[in-house]
Amino acid sequence: MSKHLHLNAFLMSVGHHEAAWRLPESDPHAHTDIDYYVKLAQTAERGKLDSIFFADSPVLMGDPGRRPSGKLEPTVILTAVAVQTSRIGLIATASTSYNDPYNLARRFASVDWVSNGRAGWNIVTTAGADAARNFGLDDTPDHRVRYEKAAEFVDVATKLWDSWDDDAIVADKELGIHADAAKVRKILHRGEHFRVDGPLNLPRSPQGYPLLVQAGSSEDGKEFAARYAEAVFTAQQTLEDAKDFYTDLKARTIAAGRDPESIKILPGIVPIIGDTEEHARELDAELARLISPEYARKQLAERFKLPIDELDLDSELPADLPTEDDIEGAKSRFTLIVNLARRERLTLRELIARLGGGRGHRTFAGTAVQVADAIEDWFRQGAADGFNIMPAVLPSGLDRFVDEVVPILQERGLFRTEYTETTLRGHYGLARPANQFDEADALVAAR
Amino acid sequence: MSKHLHLNAFLMSVGHHEAAWRLPESDPHAHTDIDYYVKLAQTAERGKLDSIFFADSPVLMGDPGRRPSGKLEPTVILTAVAVQTSRIGLIATASTSYNDPYNLARRFASVDWVSNGRAGWNIVTTAGADAARNFGLDDTPDHRVRYEKAAEFVDVATKLWDSWDDDAIVADKELGIHADAAKVRKILHRGEHFRVDGPLNLPRSPQGYPLLVQAGSSEDGKEFAARYAEAVFTAQQTLEDAKDFYTDLKARTIAAGRDPESIKILPGIVPIIGDTEEHARELDAELARLISPEYARKQLAERFKLPIDELDLDSELPADLPTEDDIEGAKSRFTLIVNLARRERLTLRELIARLGGGRGHRTFAGTAVQVADAIEDWFRQGAADGFNIMPAVLPSGLDRFVDEVVPILQERGLFRTEYTETTLRGHYGLARPANQFDEADALVAAR
Repeated sequence: MSKHLHLNAFLMSVGHHEAAWRLPESDPHAHTDIDYYVKLAQTAERGKLDSIFFADSPVLMGDPGRRPSGKLEPTVILTAVAVQTSRIGLIATASTSYNDPYNLARRFASVDWVSNGRAGWNIVTTAGADAARNFGLDDTPDHRVRYEKAAEFVDVATKLWDSWDDDAIVADKELGIHADAAKVRKILHRGEHFRVDGPLNLPRSPQGYPLLVQAGSSEDGKEFAARYAEAVFTAQQTLEDAKDFYTDLKARTIAAGRDPESIKILPGIVPIIGDTEEHARELDAELARLISPEYARKQLAERFKLPIDELDLDSELPADLPTEDDIEGAKSRFTLIVNLARRERLTLRELIARLGGGRGHRTFAGTAVQVADAIEDWFRQGAADGFNIMPAVLPSGLDRFVDEVVPILQERGLFRTEYTETTLRGHYGLARPANQFDEADALVAAR
Repeated sequence: MSKHLHLNAFLMSVGHHEAAWRLPESDPHAHTDIDYYVKLAQTAERGKLDSIFFADSPVLMGDPGRRPSGKLEPTVILTAVAVQTSRIGLIATASTSYNDPYNLARRFASVDWVSNGRAGWNIVTTAGADAARNFGLDDTPDHRVRYEKAAEFVDVATKLWDSWDDDAIVADKELGIHADAAKVRKILHRGEHFRVDGPLNLPRSPQGYPLLVQAGSSEDGKEFAARYAEAVFTAQQTLEDAKDFYTDLKARTIAAGRDPESIKILPGIVPIIGDTEEHARELDAELARLISPEYARKQLAERFKLPIDELDLDSELPADLPTEDDIEGAKSRFTLIVNLARRERLTLRELIARLGGGRGHRTFAGTAVQVADAIEDWFRQGAADGFNIMPAVLPSGLDRFVDEVVPILQERGLFRTEYTETTLRGHYGLARPANQFDEADALVAAR
């Protein structure tokens, strides 16, 4: 555990709470307004946060009546933000199931160039038949197959990113040689899922390649993270579960032959910050009141594969539920939600209210000091290298976090007061990756 | 022919001339510097141009020693430019052979949102085995098949862009309904090449969808343009050829059931502007001297499918060449180059110098007045609705065009002195497309 914790702001339209858009303060058209996202990013940068993050799936999720739906493509958002900020890290989700490695590797390398080394890629395999049916498939591929494909995808992408040596461009005007062709190479990848010749049509980017992020907590997901991820987002409801996850993933990372410090684990937290604890609870209750239960009930029915008529809002979850093995995506989230409902004996109405803010992530309503305490506690107890901050309401929730919680963490010596690095990896204390094909790099790595 | 002509600036690293990077004034690292592109775009906007354009192919083209190679992904460039300009139109090439319609439709719609209605898509099918081998194929699909797939791709994309009615978002905070689900629809496309359910995960964008641009001048290309394109880039060496092309494509557009004014034809011109005609010719000659003949000779050998040893730089093109039918991509460009070489009896050395600036596009060296005369002449003679300006050297060539040629065209009443519209289609005098699924729109269209 390093001295400083890391903070990522996970941004979602007008907030993570599904009813946030119904508050008087919220602009229900903000989700297609790039200036809105730029301002959020500038707020995060003002707070010296490590990074901002946008989730994504190539499908319209759920009923468009429920909340602002449809999103600007996140690498487009990152690019617009990149040229209007200077330090904040920029992470976006993209799917390994529904992209070509060549195109995606190039797009993230382009964002890394445009941001001068601040790009990060949250690697997801994308569950769900709805997404599959936007790409010529009838249903989502099997979970295990998706992860095998993801591993090969990352392998191809890193080869493409390394297909140019860092010093390939010689720019010799006199001799008329722009790049040394011997330092630009085909990768000739021949795998189970991909055949890609290369080289990439872009020189190696400032970070070498984007920070690799991962957010799946299933068995397959954890194994994948241990091999590839440099930062991990995870949903954890209790300190005990979070510590178990942290210890387990660090051990898996060591087992994969990596330094446990080379992977940063960031549980999600949905802070609802009030002037007093009571005020925070009122805000939370107001948001819960604004949830339309029918949309939420329908989603629960789909998640638990139960007929919607069997879901009584004033009863607990039925005893007979599918197991994680029956679920094709968000496996660990399924288990987390079942455990939460059982542990606290929640009615469906109460469960819906608990899920409204963070969809299974830990919601915490309190004062700025209490939020800072909650963060410090988990950090000091070895449950986290930092946190994935998921404001229930935006922009006000991020403003309050940056203006009220961050200064407390800074006063306690837990968080940077100024940026000391310029790249996303720099913020997370991670090294720039060596080029797997560069002989000089290889010599250094072998020592 | 309308009263005003249209001007697009086709931007390519430090200029279209392959040796431009060797000039003392050129920054050989500019091609990965986003600030450089933003400044070029701001210059074009200062000149009140209709649009800027970036070509693209998902492959590293040619020898990286020859010139700055590798490019930032062009929708990334457009996005960075979009948030730092307010009026200039933003066009980028993307391939229908090596993208998924869902992802590409969404990305261009996102750029249209971010730019407030200034996005354009240059639709290409992408020739060449090298590109194919970055996407799991051994060779490029047949020319005809590529164009059939492109037509279906555009069909899918327009359906996705129309999958939300313009007024789908009701944002009723009181009732808790964000979008009217009845105005957001699956497209359930089932075709020869694509199966896509939809809807798009993004509301309909300011222009409805991006301006559709096309640049292929083969038979298949012209038929495709007549059906779909709203702007066409074309390479024409002589006034006669340009008039023939213009007349032919307008007739094909009428035959396809469209208004001939709904398609704007823009031949390329590579202006080399000097203080005097002699000065301009000196600049042209200096650039020609800086071409490394071996790179160019190798490219000619590939283009003409001849052994490189048979290409003598001081002789004319060999008599025995393949025909356009033997060429899989850039068919019309192949014929144009053969005709140019034969017509002017050029040695290979001379041909290489002629191709160095615009790869077959018309190069014109002269004073600003002479360039303006050349533009006015073709425009008034019915050979063009406007021009695709391809500066041989950047940024200086664009600066001179904007500062010296544009004012002459404005004085002559041929070009706007201020923007009167805010969208890319507006600049080109084109109507916002109706939504094919919207009943109110359909009623208007049927009148």
